[in-house]
Formats: sequence, C-alpha cells, structure tokens
Amino acid sequence: MQPQPLRVGIAGLGTVGAAVLDILARRDNPLADRAGRQIRVTAVSARDRTRDRGHDLTRYAWFDDPVALASSPEIDCLVELMGGSDGPAKATVEAALDAGKHVVTANKALLAKHGLALAAKAEAAGRALAFEASAAGGIPVVKTLREALAGNGVTRLYGILNGTCNYILSRMEQEGSSFADCLAAAQKLGYAEADPTFDIEGYDTAHKLAILTSLAFGVEIDAEAIYVEGISSITPVDLAMAEELGFRIKLLGVAERVGDSGIEQRVHPTMVPKTSAVAQVMGVTNAVTIDADAVGELTLIGPGAGGKATASAVVSDIADVAAGTVGMPFGRPAARLETAERAPMQRHQGGYYIRLTVHDRPGVAAGVASRMAQADISIESIIQKRPPGADKDKHGRSGEPVALVLITYEAAEAAIRSALDAIAGDGLVSEPPQVIRIERD
Amino acid sequence: MQPQPLRVGIAGLGTVGAAVLDILARRDNPLADRAGRQIRVTAVSARDRTRDRGHDLTRYAWFDDPVALASSPEIDCLVELMGGSDGPAKATVEAALDAGKHVVTANKALLAKHGLALAAKAEAAGRALAFEASAAGGIPVVKTLREALAGNGVTRLYGILNGTCNYILSRMEQEGSSFADCLAAAQKLGYAEADPTFDIEGYDTAHKLAILTSLAFGVEIDAEAIYVEGISSITPVDLAMAEELGFRIKLLGVAERVGDSGIEQRVHPTMVPKTSAVAQVMGVTNAVTIDADAVGELTLIGPGAGGKATASAVVSDIADVAAGTVGMPFGRPAARLETAERAPMQRHQGGYYIRLTVHDRPGVAAGVASRMAQADISIESIIQKRPPGADKDKHGRSGEPVALVLITYEAAEAAIRSALDAIAGDGLVSEPPQVIRIERD
Repeated sequence: MQPQPLRVGIAGLGTVGAAVLDILARRDNPLADRAGRQIRVTAVSARDRTRDRGHDLTRYAWFDDPVALASSPEIDCLVELMGGSDGPAKATVEAALDAGKHVVTANKALLAKHGLALAAKAEAAGRALAFEASAAGGIPVVKTLREALAGNGVTRLYGILNGTCNYILSRMEQEGSSFADCLAAAQKLGYAEADPTFDIEGYDTAHKLAILTSLAFGVEIDAEAIYVEGISSITPVDLAMAEELGFRIKLLGVAERVGDSGIEQRVHPTMVPKTSAVAQVMGVTNAVTIDADAVGELTLIGPGAGGKATASAVVSDIADVAAGTVGMPFGRPAARLETAERAPMQRHQGGYYIRLTVHDRPGVAAGVASRMAQADISIESIIQKRPPGADKDKHGRSGEPVALVLITYEAAEAAIRSALDAIAGDGLVSEPPQVIRIERD
Repeated sequence: MQPQPLRVGIAGLGTVGAAVLDILARRDNPLADRAGRQIRVTAVSARDRTRDRGHDLTRYAWFDDPVALASSPEIDCLVELMGGSDGPAKATVEAALDAGKHVVTANKALLAKHGLALAAKAEAAGRALAFEASAAGGIPVVKTLREALAGNGVTRLYGILNGTCNYILSRMEQEGSSFADCLAAAQKLGYAEADPTFDIEGYDTAHKLAILTSLAFGVEIDAEAIYVEGISSITPVDLAMAEELGFRIKLLGVAERVGDSGIEQRVHPTMVPKTSAVAQVMGVTNAVTIDADAVGELTLIGPGAGGKATASAVVSDIADVAAGTVGMPFGRPAARLETAERAPMQRHQGGYYIRLTVHDRPGVAAGVASRMAQADISIESIIQKRPPGADKDKHGRSGEPVALVLITYEAAEAAIRSALDAIAGDGLVSEPPQVIRIERD
C-alpha cells in the first residue's frame, strides 16, 4: 500500500511562496524519494487571487481567509509565508495547530515574539512547528543547531544575519562612500526597502538572533533582552581605520554564555579580525559562526534572503514533515527550555574601537589616556590622524579637529562609558565619540 | 510510560570512541530531551582492554570480538569506530544490520567501497545507517546534503576535505618552505601520519568525495571513477605565483554535473580565487562549498578531524537514531540512486595554471604560445620569471632556465596535454611542466 501524500496548504504567495510552488513541482520525485511519500499542494491563500505568479492556481483550492485554509480538512501541513508578528499570521498558525496540522513558517517576527507559546502548542498537539527559513534564509542553521550539534554545549554564536546591512557596509568599504549613498544604492537594487529602518537599525537581525539563541543555548526566546544598535552611524573613516588596524566592520548578532546562567544577546556594528571567516563575507550573503565545546568552531555561509534560497529552507522543512522526522521545535520540550539570566550590556566585557574627534592642541592625547587609565582601561594602540591637506602652524598643528583612535584591551562597557563621559566633561572632544565593539574569533 | 533507552554498543575505543563516551556522559540530559529517550552505552569492544582511556569500562559489557558485540541482545545501535574498508569493520557493520541493529559509523573507507550494499542492507532491515562523521568530521555536510538541500538540484560540490594537506599547503604559503619541510613539521605536530601517503596523495579526500557525491547528486557511490592527484609536486614557486595571480592553492575534492547524466569527480591541487570562501580556510580546517539551484552557494567551514569534532558528528547520528528520525542512508532508496556516467578527466573543461621551465633564449615564449594556439587554447595571462640574482648576458639573459607561467581560459584537459607534449617535443622545456587546475567560485 502506498502511503498517503502529505497535503500542503500555502498561506502567502509572494516571491517565497511562488518559489516553493516551483520547487515542489520540479523536485516532485526526489522529494517523494526522500520523504517516503508524495508531497501535494492542495490549497492556497493570498491577498490577491488574480495576480500572475506564473502558476496555475486553479489546481488548488482557494481560500480568501488564511485561517479557514489553516483548519481546512484538505490539508495536513500549513505553510505560513505571510509575515508579521501578530494579526493574520499568528491567527493562521494557531488555527492550524489547533486543527492538528503541522506548521512550516518563515516568519521570524512571529517566532521571536510568540515562538515559545507556539512551540508548546505544537508539542501538545503532537505536530511539527518547523522554521528553518526564519533565520539566515537558505543557510541550514536551525537544523544544525537543533540536530547536528545535539552533542555540543554552545558557548557563543555570532553572525551576519541581515544582507541589506552587509551589502551597505561592504559597498562603503569598497568605495569609500557614505552610508547614505550606499543605502540609496541598495534601495535602487532592491536590497533595501523604501523604509529601511527595520533592517539598518538592527531589528531584523535581533529577531533572527532571538530564535538562534534559543536553539543554541536551550533557553526561552527573549527578544526583549537583546541590546540593539544599527549601522547608520558608521562612516567611511571608521571603515578605513578598521582596514588599517586589521579589521572589517560587520553588523553582527552575538549571543554568548556569561557566567553560569546568563546569556548576553546583542546586535551592533562590530570590528572583526580580517582573518575571521565572517570578515570575508561581502554583499548580501549571510554567515553564522558557532563556538561549541565538542566541534570547536563551525561557520555556515550562504544566502540569507531571496525567494529561491528561502524557499529551499521551507521545502526542507516540508520534506522533514512529510518524512515524519521533525522533533520538538527547539530540540527539547518547550517547558524544559531554561530561563536565562539577562546579561546587561553595561557589564559586557570586550575590546573597543573608540574614535574621538579632538582639538588639535598639546595635552589632548595625554588627557584622554589619563581618563582611560582612571577607568582601568588598558589601551592596545592609539592612532592620531590629521585631516589630509590641512594648513599647519609652526608646530605642525592645523587647528582643525583631528581623529584620535584608540583600541582597548578587554574592558567593561560601563568603564568605557564612564571614561568617555569624563573625557567629554574635560572639553577634550568636539563631537560625540564613535564606539565600535570588537569581536575576536 | 517512559520510552526505553537506546542501548548503544561502541566498537573501537580510540580517540573518537573515548570522546563519544565523554559527550554521552556529559550531555546525558540534553540528549535525552532532544531524542525523547535516554541514550545508554551498554557494551564496548576494543583491541586492548587494559589501556587507560579515562573511562571506567567495567560499567559496560566487554566484547573481545566486535562481531559478537554487533549481534549482542544488549544493544540496539552499533557505533563502528574501528576503520578499514574491509575485515573486522565490514564484518561488524554487516553483523549489526543482520541482527536488526541500527549502525552509526565514521568509516569513510568502508562507505566509499561498500556504502551502496550496506545502505541496501540497512533499508531492507528497516534500520539506520548513519555516517555524518565519515566526511569532513565535525561539519554537518551529510545532514545538509541529505536533508537541508532536499529541495535542491546540486550542480557542483567542492571542498577541502583533508586537514593534513591543507595544513601543509597553508604552511608552505606562509613560510615559503618546501613540501618536505612542511610535511615533516606536520608529522611532528601529529597532523600527519608517519606514512603520510594516504593523505598527501589524495586518497583520503577521494573517499570522502565519493560519499558526498552520492548524497549531492543522488547517484551510486563510485570511488573508482575519481581522478586523484596529490600535493607532493607543489613547490613554493607555485604558491608564490598563485599569490601574485590572485589565487591560493588548495587540495580540493570536486564533483560536478557534466551534461545530462555525467558526473566528474576529481581530487587535485587547485588554484582557487583568493576571494572565494575556501581560499580563506587555513590550517587543518575543512570546508565544503555546494552550488545548488535553489539555495545558490552554501559553504560550511569547520574541523574535519580530531577526536572531539568527529565525536560531535557521531553523537548527532546517535541522537537521530534515538529520536527515530534517520531516513534512508543516502536520502532516497539505494535502488533508486542513479548510475552516473563517468566523465573522464581528458574531457575536463576548465582554466589551467601551467608553469614551464624553459631555456632562456629568443623565441621560446613564441614557440610555447604557438603550440597553445594550435591546440585551440586561449591564454589569459603569461608571466616570465628570471631566477633572482642570476648573471645576465648583454641581452639581459642569464643562460639559466627561467619560469614561464601561463594562465589559460577554459580549455579541455586533452588539449592541454597535447599542447604540452608538443612543447616538450620541440625541446623548449628543461623540466616536466607543472599543471594546476583552476576552480572558479
């Protein structure tokens, strides 16, 4: 007797949904071989029934209401590709689980906010909640953390999780252009939204990091705990200084064990050594590095967005559902995820790049250095840069403000902040300081 | 009612076996959470019962004979860590499958030779044959190919699959030292065996490539079809030229679809663009890049050997067995793996680096160029290098042989070989040519 096909309903037929339909049609036989049964799309739902998606939708039952699709007896597995942390997406996923359907979703916002409750619901129903596509697109980092690293304790995870930001930073570095120019270029190429806030201010990275942190450390999702800083303050000067000092600047999401039960989660522009794997990753590509006690360091690099790459992850989840091999959403019962202690950013320990804009007069460097020493911060290197071509007095000074760049050894964020406040109080700087954290591999 | 624990028997207690015992003890609870049942080592077998492995072996049933362990009623899953393509390892794995046990193995030689037959046996018995650790150590490339890329057609796979070779090449590049010196250094550090043939001549890479090719393309394992060339002929001059031309030299295993039903499998030193992900991978680290139609390019980087990293992969397989989520060994029924047409190396198409040692006299470069043109090979660049410090005549010639380096556009291997034969026949070269294939990302 042939096993019954897995009947799939897709809610949301944008770029990713259309690519999922493509792949399921083109890879029909290999997928059936892999899963041990056929996979059949039986029903769909989208906002606009008439839009041309290159697919004959008359072959599928049509639902105007995704919630009705979710509980339809015509499907076994709901694929949610609508997006949004609440509203229809949440209602649809909940309806599907309530009706005993498996769920596959690419919705990072939904998971970052409601992942824990949805996982508990899926477990109670004995159904899958699979979300490979929700973090780092086509990179199989969810499966890697949940399954391949089951024997590992993870100590740190960090990655480039937003292609828009990496594209902008790569272009700024390569062309020496401003953030604004490179953002405009990214928008023109379709790599950035008309309103780019969500990407460039780090919120998209934070959603993905929240999901990966839970998988990596076996803790409850806690997106609220993430310290978030975007890339709009990065200047070509910082990128040039990074180059000179042996670093590149990337927007990283970082999650790290701190002490016995603490997890530090942060998203910020980061100086990474040029020799590190993530430093090589340019353009819209994503990358995740995992430090774990058994395997050591593992890095996965690939496309983090785009219809086909995201659909690749969605289809891998559908195949796992069809094969019956999806375990608990977070690799252990949701009730057994630990509640991590939030490690506050003020207690973060790390190296810092600090670029001060100082008045070009005697004693300034000494004044800065002495404030650093008072805060117990050791300086690894210090570089003073005069603006090129400026007129100079008989001492070689131009009278223009100059850049004073410090690289610190490991120091506490609170100490850095207090030293910088003291330096500002001393009237040594003419602009707010630029502070970029350093992450060593 | 609690589910029964998975009872594991381990055959082979070297570095990897001891690390597996470590991880199973230390990660007892998370693994049980992940698998939904306990994992218990109940029996072991090794050559020497008395050796101190840092584990109290009296807790496990001891078997002098691994075949007896394999069919013992005290185990549900046999972990084979003995190695070797035939003999006891094969007998043990076969006995386990015959007795209805699941099998987890790290044995690349066994799989490269008997993987297809063993997969068929496992499927017939309805048991798992899992082998994540057999290729690229701690990198979850088997799971990625078999599960995460289920929606993808793979067009090419290439990787650094042997840490010994990558260590030697990295060190030669960084120090400008000879192959022999760097091999000796690798041996001293324990990165190379006393008899290093198996690693440096590419056979180890070929075993791993054979397994990955089968998973990537859905074809039968065909290790015999692999063209294999090692790294012992690589010189510091080649590495310096590579650097100058924007390349690095890596020993790659490459598998590629050619035409409709052909697969080209080859292992050889390879020039890769410095900007490619694999070019960044230095030392004993491994890396695999997969080009696939949905996801695009995916690269996985991590430790390819070592007790803990290999054990990480073994334990991930054991956890999948315990969770009951292991499907067919090669992601589809063994009987449905295609028989690929062997694409012979003579028909390989690609760019070539050719270093000729020529007599320093007029007309030599012209003679070489004309033979290339006759074989329909287009030259992308040509560089002539005089040995530094050599005495010169009034024309600036030293009389010493000089290096003439050509980079070709895409050409057929057969054309390259025939042109080089003609050049040798013309008496233009004083030493056999160095030929290194170029792989673009």
